[in-house]
Amino acid sequence: MPDAVHRQVEAVNTAFYEAIENADLDSMLDLWVDDPGVVCVHPGALPVRGPGPVSRSWAVVMAHTSYIQFFLTDVEVAVHGEAASVTCTENVLTGDERTGPEEFGGGKAVATNVFLRTPDGWRLWLHHASPVLAAADGDR
Amino acid sequence: MPDAVHRQVEAVNTAFYEAIENADLDSMLDLWVDDPGVVCVHPGALPVRGPGPVSRSWAVVMAHTSYIQFFLTDVEVAVHGEAASVTCTENVLTGDERTGPEEFGGGKAVATNVFLRTPDGWRLWLHHASPVLAAADGDR
Repeated sequence: MPDAVHRQVEAVNTAFYEAIENADLDSMLDLWVDDPGVVCVHPGALPVRGPGPVSRSWAVVMAHTSYIQFFLTDVEVAVHGEAASVTCTENVLTGDERTGPEEFGGGKAVATNVFLRTPDGWRLWLHHASPVLAAADGDR
Repeated sequence: MPDAVHRQVEAVNTAFYEAIENADLDSMLDLWVDDPGVVCVHPGALPVRGPGPVSRSWAVVMAHTSYIQFFLTDVEVAVHGEAASVTCTENVLTGDERTGPEEFGGGKAVATNVFLRTPDGWRLWLHHASPVLAAADGDR
């Protein structure tokens, strides 16, 4: 049962993916908590920690991606006090300088995005995306 | 500069990995927030959500692992209000029913563990572990 808070969190989550799609680094950075503890794990990579490294990692992603589009599925929002999480499957369509207009890559990742409530609204504190290698186990 | 709160969080994080090593499901379950929003992403898998599915997923992991040992490296604790995160590299040594005493598997994963402050102390709210596929990029 989505309530107003869930919708606020999901809107910030959507804005996060739109910032990547639009290669809009300023909008991306505005979405993060101003906190030394921010962490970002890009798929298959080691953690990037702190505002400077996290910002630069997104600048690199945006500089190396000429086209990217996210189709989010299985989006679930959870809120507990001042913290919120969004877990979702990122179905990704990409193109880069090596692909022509008819050639796109694709992929699937699972993301957990953790948001904290701030005076300016919900802001991203942690992003962890990982490749999906296996089918879900018997628990799902 | 680790302070008392950081040490409390890191102690719960350590207890989490000890519970897996000891196949101690009761201790594992005691470490989680009693909240419908708990989420667990096992390496390469889709999210498992909610206390029942998360509990069962650990029961399955423990039932299928005869030996597992974690060597944690690059452990970083961040605290913001009532939320805390631990990011670390899980260097894993495993054996199962197929491996003899001289044969072990191994692997490396990156984990983000998010804890919330509760009346009973810091408790796990979200665990996301993912395989490390690539070297760190230029941002590190």
